Amino acid sequence: MAQNIYDDPKFFEAYSQFRRSRLGLAGAAEWPAMRSLLPLMSGARVVDLGCGFGWFCRWAHAAGAANVLGLDISEKMLARARAETRDRAITYRRADLQTLDLPEAAFDVAYSSLAFHYVEHLGRLIACVHGALGPGGRLVFSVEHPIYMAPSRPDWIELAEGRKVWPLDGYLREGKRTTDWLAPGVEKFHRTLGTTLDVLIDAGFSIRRAIEWRPTDADLAAEPSLAKELERPMFLLIAADR
Amino acid sequence: MAQNIYDDPKFFEAYSQFRRSRLGLAGAAEWPAMRSLLPLMSGARVVDLGCGFGWFCRWAHAAGAANVLGLDISEKMLARARAETRDRAITYRRADLQTLDLPEAAFDVAYSSLAFHYVEHLGRLIACVHGALGPGGRLVFSVEHPIYMAPSRPDWIELAEGRKVWPLDGYLREGKRTTDWLAPGVEKFHRTLGTTLDVLIDAGFSIRRAIEWRPTDADLAAEPSLAKELERPMFLLIAADR
Repeated sequence: MAQNIYDDPKFFEAYSQFRRSRLGLAGAAEWPAMRSLLPLMSGARVVDLGCGFGWFCRWAHAAGAANVLGLDISEKMLARARAETRDRAITYRRADLQTLDLPEAAFDVAYSSLAFHYVEHLGRLIACVHGALGPGGRLVFSVEHPIYMAPSRPDWIELAEGRKVWPLDGYLREGKRTTDWLAPGVEKFHRTLGTTLDVLIDAGFSIRRAIEWRPTDADLAAEPSLAKELERPMFLLIAADR
Repeated sequence: MAQNIYDDPKFFEAYSQFRRSRLGLAGAAEWPAMRSLLPLMSGARVVDLGCGFGWFCRWAHAAGAANVLGLDISEKMLARARAETRDRAITYRRADLQTLDLPEAAFDVAYSSLAFHYVEHLGRLIACVHGALGPGGRLVFSVEHPIYMAPSRPDWIELAEGRKVWPLDGYLREGKRTTDWLAPGVEKFHRTLGTTLDVLIDAGFSIRRAIEWRPTDADLAAEPSLAKELERPMFLLIAADR
């Protein structure tokens, strides 16, 4: 079973203060890029793997999806998602992505935001998603970028001349990374970009787009502190077709 | 026109001392991984973009290729390639990858080792290669990994605790990188991995494999100094089908 850190009271409290937890998709800098990878929602059957508070589920339905299934391991997140959702075409269910089963060819779009890096065996999950998508189906997901996740100490260092650099090491040593992020001992799994693409291709997906997210000029004008995001990528966004 | 640094006498002299210049493919640590990406050579029409001393051209012909065209911008490298090649099914031609033209559907395999990062406009080149491959054709190439190329000072730094890290910055700032490698002022062009994949997909290629090269256990046993290559990837190898 994957670690269920979002139900840790301290983690949940801190996470709930995040811009993206308060504002939803509009508070997530990478959302416009994620959205650009999505097919038309009109009439689509959608599954959201790691749906959190359900922001995407509600957006998908408002954008025309026929029905949306939100899955998450966190009881607390599902409780808030249910409380904030009125429409009966959106359903939420507790699920562990590590042991997930889905019906065959039941969805047109599979979506996941910043959840797959908590999953140890990505190959098993991706094979399950491939089977759950109908012909022509699309998978769109984001993860922490492996450059962001790999280092033994994932934080900027300032060199003598005042320049900040990202101290990369261990990029090719895949496996568990334990960090103290919002709560102590958060477990994530580092995979290289090449491995992630291999897993998709081996499952039968065609890679459509891989975006190493960067702030746009408009993002930088609105939020100058984002400039550091040009130094190393934080998010990896992928679209793949069944 | 791309910079022709290989014809700089100092650069050429230093490059000629390299293991891979003396031993050919057997002296290139990433060759077994490159080879794993290649289709059967039997009867294939092959083009090598940036063929250098012609090691791959001769290997391809020995492995059964019907004919092999080696292209390079460096007169000195082509002169040595010609001097070391006897077979008339292998031909060499001077060409600048930046302005390359190739006949339509004339090749089954396009190969390139560590040359595309000297090319500023990759999209133009990849479109040319796509047109030059027949249906079912395959492109296999390596470049310096963007993590290796991006930094303003691409060299290890040692932290106070004795740990070495790769000081990544500028990963999302694409464009020219000028380094003093073998000779001063060597010009290369940094593109993110995502951009390289986009260029291939937009040209009509299907991504088959993306390898962020790492030494094998056998490599590490034979050459313990390769252990640092696990900290950050040096080479990116890609196979794509037309």
